[in-house]
Amino acid sequence: MLLKKNIPIGYIFGKIKYQVLFVTVYGVAIEVIYQNYHITNITIPITVTSVLGTIISLLLAFRSNQAYDRWWEARIVWGAIVNDSRTFARQVISLMDDSFQPLALDAFKQRMINRQIAWCYALGKGLRKEDPMSIVRKHLSEEDFEYIKEFDTKHVGLMQLHARDLNNALKQGWINAYQQVEIDRTVTRLCDAMGKCERIKNTVFPATYSLYIHLALNFFVLLLPFALVDLFGFLMVPVLVVTTSFFFLIEKMAIHLQDPFENKPTDTPMLTISSNIERDLKQMTKDHYEPSPQHAGKFYVL
Amino acid sequence: MLLKKNIPIGYIFGKIKYQVLFVTVYGVAIEVIYQNYHITNITIPITVTSVLGTIISLLLAFRSNQAYDRWWEARIVWGAIVNDSRTFARQVISLMDDSFQPLALDAFKQRMINRQIAWCYALGKGLRKEDPMSIVRKHLSEEDFEYIKEFDTKHVGLMQLHARDLNNALKQGWINAYQQVEIDRTVTRLCDAMGKCERIKNTVFPATYSLYIHLALNFFVLLLPFALVDLFGFLMVPVLVVTTSFFFLIEKMAIHLQDPFENKPTDTPMLTISSNIERDLKQMTKDHYEPSPQHAGKFYVL
Amino acid sequence: MLLKKNIPIGYIFGKIKYQVLFVTVYGVAIEVIYQNYHITNITIPITVTSVLGTIISLLLAFRSNQAYDRWWEARIVWGAIVNDSRTFARQVISLMDDSFQPLALDAFKQRMINRQIAWCYALGKGLRKEDPMSIVRKHLSEEDFEYIKEFDTKHVGLMQLHARDLNNALKQGWINAYQQVEIDRTVTRLCDAMGKCERIKNTVFPATYSLYIHLALNFFVLLLPFALVDLFGFLMVPVLVVTTSFFFLIEKMAIHLQDPFENKPTDTPMLTISSNIERDLKQMTKDHYEPSPQHAGKFYVL
Amino acid sequence: MLLKKNIPIGYIFGKIKYQVLFVTVYGVAIEVIYQNYHITNITIPITVTSVLGTIISLLLAFRSNQAYDRWWEARIVWGAIVNDSRTFARQVISLMDDSFQPLALDAFKQRMINRQIAWCYALGKGLRKEDPMSIVRKHLSEEDFEYIKEFDTKHVGLMQLHARDLNNALKQGWINAYQQVEIDRTVTRLCDAMGKCERIKNTVFPATYSLYIHLALNFFVLLLPFALVDLFGFLMVPVLVVTTSFFFLIEKMAIHLQDPFENKPTDTPMLTISSNIERDLKQMTKDHYEPSPQHAGKFYVL
Amino acid sequence: MLLKKNIPIGYIFGKIKYQVLFVTVYGVAIEVIYQNYHITNITIPITVTSVLGTIISLLLAFRSNQAYDRWWEARIVWGAIVNDSRTFARQVISLMDDSFQPLALDAFKQRMINRQIAWCYALGKGLRKEDPMSIVRKHLSEEDFEYIKEFDTKHVGLMQLHARDLNNALKQGWINAYQQVEIDRTVTRLCDAMGKCERIKNTVFPATYSLYIHLALNFFVLLLPFALVDLFGFLMVPVLVVTTSFFFLIEKMAIHLQDPFENKPTDTPMLTISSNIERDLKQMTKDHYEPSPQHAGKFYVL
Repeated sequence: MLLKKNIPIGYIFGKIKYQVLFVTVYGVAIEVIYQNYHITNITIPITVTSVLGTIISLLLAFRSNQAYDRWWEARIVWGAIVNDSRTFARQVISLMDDSFQPLALDAFKQRMINRQIAWCYALGKGLRKEDPMSIVRKHLSEEDFEYIKEFDTKHVGLMQLHARDLNNALKQGWINAYQQVEIDRTVTRLCDAMGKCERIKNTVFPATYSLYIHLALNFFVLLLPFALVDLFGFLMVPVLVVTTSFFFLIEKMAIHLQDPFENKPTDTPMLTISSNIERDLKQMTKDHYEPSPQHAGKFYVL
Repeated sequence: MLLKKNIPIGYIFGKIKYQVLFVTVYGVAIEVIYQNYHITNITIPITVTSVLGTIISLLLAFRSNQAYDRWWEARIVWGAIVNDSRTFARQVISLMDDSFQPLALDAFKQRMINRQIAWCYALGKGLRKEDPMSIVRKHLSEEDFEYIKEFDTKHVGLMQLHARDLNNALKQGWINAYQQVEIDRTVTRLCDAMGKCERIKNTVFPATYSLYIHLALNFFVLLLPFALVDLFGFLMVPVLVVTTSFFFLIEKMAIHLQDPFENKPTDTPMLTISSNIERDLKQMTKDHYEPSPQHAGKFYVL
Repeated sequence: MLLKKNIPIGYIFGKIKYQVLFVTVYGVAIEVIYQNYHITNITIPITVTSVLGTIISLLLAFRSNQAYDRWWEARIVWGAIVNDSRTFARQVISLMDDSFQPLALDAFKQRMINRQIAWCYALGKGLRKEDPMSIVRKHLSEEDFEYIKEFDTKHVGLMQLHARDLNNALKQGWINAYQQVEIDRTVTRLCDAMGKCERIKNTVFPATYSLYIHLALNFFVLLLPFALVDLFGFLMVPVLVVTTSFFFLIEKMAIHLQDPFENKPTDTPMLTISSNIERDLKQMTKDHYEPSPQHAGKFYVL
Repeated sequence: MLLKKNIPIGYIFGKIKYQVLFVTVYGVAIEVIYQNYHITNITIPITVTSVLGTIISLLLAFRSNQAYDRWWEARIVWGAIVNDSRTFARQVISLMDDSFQPLALDAFKQRMINRQIAWCYALGKGLRKEDPMSIVRKHLSEEDFEYIKEFDTKHVGLMQLHARDLNNALKQGWINAYQQVEIDRTVTRLCDAMGKCERIKNTVFPATYSLYIHLALNFFVLLLPFALVDLFGFLMVPVLVVTTSFFFLIEKMAIHLQDPFENKPTDTPMLTISSNIERDLKQMTKDHYEPSPQHAGKFYVL
Repeated sequence: MLLKKNIPIGYIFGKIKYQVLFVTVYGVAIEVIYQNYHITNITIPITVTSVLGTIISLLLAFRSNQAYDRWWEARIVWGAIVNDSRTFARQVISLMDDSFQPLALDAFKQRMINRQIAWCYALGKGLRKEDPMSIVRKHLSEEDFEYIKEFDTKHVGLMQLHARDLNNALKQGWINAYQQVEIDRTVTRLCDAMGKCERIKNTVFPATYSLYIHLALNFFVLLLPFALVDLFGFLMVPVLVVTTSFFFLIEKMAIHLQDPFENKPTDTPMLTISSNIERDLKQMTKDHYEPSPQHAGKFYVL
């Protein structure tokens, strides 16, 4: 997630530097040809390009809106993961009870809650196609860590362990069937959140939609200098560059927003959220919380 | 689902090749008439067509948005099928218990979960009006396979079997009434997903809406050359072709997005999703998973 | 619901034939006056009407969107009725049990499920203000049929009978209190769907909204010829007619979409959906299903 | 809620009569100055105002959409009140049981259901800041009526009585703890609906949003005559009046839609809906229903 | 929340006073240069800026819409807090029961409900990064107050106490496991609301989106005078100032709406809502309610 401040100019314009370069050269070239060789019949009325511009910006606006919705949905899903992780911890703490072996139960609760923390990190790393094992190791028991080694997706393996342990808790008499189902519902919600993240990650934004707008935008950029050429003289070049940059930037922004799990500065800040979950859950169990090194750049958090 | 890369030019423009051909011929003809016979009073001001163009692109933008929503809803439904299939498997594994006949119960669980895999394939194939029997056979017991033969829609028959088996599990004492209802809720959610797919499949996008936009667009294309004819000379033809192609492509894209179960490259990738469900469920039961041949073309997955 | 194919020209344009006629006469008259009497100062710049046209088409586009949302909501509600009818049948079949009087219970289940079929037809007919008694008779027992005669809205009476019978089933010991509540929830969802249909049926789309757009559109149509009069000569008339027809058609479409229970070809196809529910529920009870005569015209289904 | 028919002209234009009057005088004045004193350099190009017009109508369209969403949400909430009132009555009738004191229980059920009817009226009246006591009296027992006298908001007091009586029913053994919770959920949904109405009632639509659009619209109206002054001559005045009226009407409509509980003709028809709830609930208890005098004007229902 | 009336001019324009000042000076300067030095070739056609204006207002309109959605979501969350606080109180009052130690239970209920009031204030203050301890003290027991001192976020600590007390109530036999789970669900919903507020608070609106629109708007403002310079003479300056002010105001409004927990007049009125919750909950427990000093300015409530 980009922060409000300190976004460097380089980051903003770095993404479109080749386009800007091309448009500058292209604009200058056309102006030179127009001025020097007096080929004035290449101008076209601004109205033609204005129609095209309106249509493209209309589709671009709708498309930004859809990209924004994906981004916001991703954030809502991670907000739900925060809520359900807390709910899970609260239910584990307050619904499970045993007067005979309190110590065993306490260790069991601790293991469940730490595993929930590990699950958040594993999901975040997994969605970014990074290896979660190093960050996950310190929250898991040795046995759990071995168990998930064989899994392709570590977070799926961790959920398996949750379900198995809930079953054990029922057999131990720490919860009754009714409470098992209640906690199982929380686990179901966490699985749903996991599935929603995977859906957003794996569903390509309609490729034709992106492509047609991209092609039309480029065609528009090619036409535009012919409409501006007789209006400004060489001042046309900065106007051209600024205007087309604006279109390119809006398009790029939509592309970044629509894929929020790609290890980019515009990502949903999954590691930061996971750190917060870790802090909250540790506080609930009166466990020591050692802030991990910040998952942040100068102008964004991951 | 189209992938991001490798979409061949042929696929993109193949869909509108007749329109492009017609527009080219039509544009050239008008230019020739205009140039050779000096019938210059056929030109119309660009403003007239620009008004029409704005209106059409406004409606087209809204319509693309609605088509996108249908497509996204279809994807959300299949995301929910993934989640609920996993939840179903987890509940079958962890809620059912029997100390006396563990082997019978294990076989029973295996059969339930394999049937769930079969259901996903059957639904995917069924929505595309293809025969699911060949792909379904290897996940079903002989008896189940015979049972669903008589059904028109195989996935409805499979759900029947789920319900019947849950009933048997209750009678066998493997689950109590409370747990039966809990698993029944998951079955209900799967049925709801099935019903939602059928709703999207069977509901024609308002025909008049599509038709009026289509007619207006064609009328616009017929008018456009008269507005461009005196602006560009023969350069008018490529500008005309590119501009109208853009409109035709956006319209076609909306038509493809709004019907996501038609066995086209833009479909919801139901078979790929079903394969993933198979992989996950097999892994949960420690069953051997043999990847099926990919349901994919070069630039899309089905 | 209109089908994709075979929509007759007469249906499409029949709805606006008086408007088209008026616009034609009006356009010709103005052209004649303009041409013959040389009253050329009545022309207005196309820009004025283009501004008005943009605004109207913007509001028309939003309004079509809201009408579409109503139509789609109606379809979603009927999709939920399909799902909940199936769920209801599944729960009646699989949750109710009695080892002592299986025959009485079977007859009871059959009656419940047939009544559910009758309820769907009754709701569909009732929303269209038609008499449902003839179609409902063959799915109801004599006693039930008598009972609902006194009700204004037959579907409300049928729901009463469902609730009464669930109560009896509890007293008979066929279900326990827990299962009663579970089935009662399905009945609640069906009642909610019923209420949502009534809400859409009874809520007039904001009358002022429709009216203002309608007035502005008519004003725009009155102005438009003055803007086109000096551009095309008599060619102006077809351009005028096609353009205004487009606006009128979009307005009409929105009006039809926003009221989906009016016994028109654009309706939600409630009878066809009810037939499908009948088929599915009969198949679940192994009952004989005799397809009823299709509720369809040549180019639409009701 | 405005009905489809019979909306008097006076109602439509009465709301903007001062604006129309001002615009007429203002337009005539400018035209006179322009014509008589030949101050022709006050004209501005129509393009300037057309840009402003586009922007304002864009914001106005979005704003109407948001106002429409509020209005529709209010209607959905009252639709949910209808559904949950029926569900409440059905649950009270069918879940409560007592073989020993059926008469006491019947009186109790009657009192609960009548109180639910009273609650609907009280909520409707309360949201409109009217005194509900007269309409509520005939549905309440003497004791209940005394109890709510001391409450500021009568509908909150009535909900308290519901909760207290459910508690008593549990103590009397008329329902078990499980059924109490089930009915309590219905009461919770009714409370949620109440809270949602209060939210819509008490949340001012962002004041700055309304204000800026209002100011910009007025500025636009002040500019517009200068753009039209040399186009039409004195015909400019009707064109000006009609165009600006359209803008004013759309703005007024949005203002009315966004506040649906203000005792205006555009309100959600809460009293009519409450009457329907009364009719349905009376019919469920075979109680006599005497239609109350219609809560309706000639062209609207309240 | 801004009220409808009494918004001072100073507040409205104070936010953009530097922009207005700059635009005025800038406009005058260009006009002076244009008039005095006859550098007339700096004018650009209004169409160029009109295209840019359309695009910017389109994106601004969508962006206002998204900001509005955030603001409305924040309000919905606080509406849900009102509902769930009432539900929590009703459940605490009516579900907990003990015939043996009614006094202890009454004190316990009182403590729970007062803590719920404190939670609302603490959440409101916490979201605004203010210290809630002074306002929270009078609703908490000494013991509770000490307990939360060590917490970073007081509202999280209060929820912990709720969960602990529910656990104690179960052990005391005041509620059964089933009722515990039911109240726990209400606590879960309150936690979800808390998490949603934090999500809205902590999620920066896509920074690039805001930034690009902001840059484009400034570029547009720099260009605009060159388009207006030869149209109005010195009258151009007020037209320029009003038009650009309108754009700046819409942008500022979107910025304020999108962050509703910033201790600004446009905030969600969390303290006022909390006061209302206090009043309602005190009335439910027949406790004395002393209205706190209004959390309001002249034209807004906090």
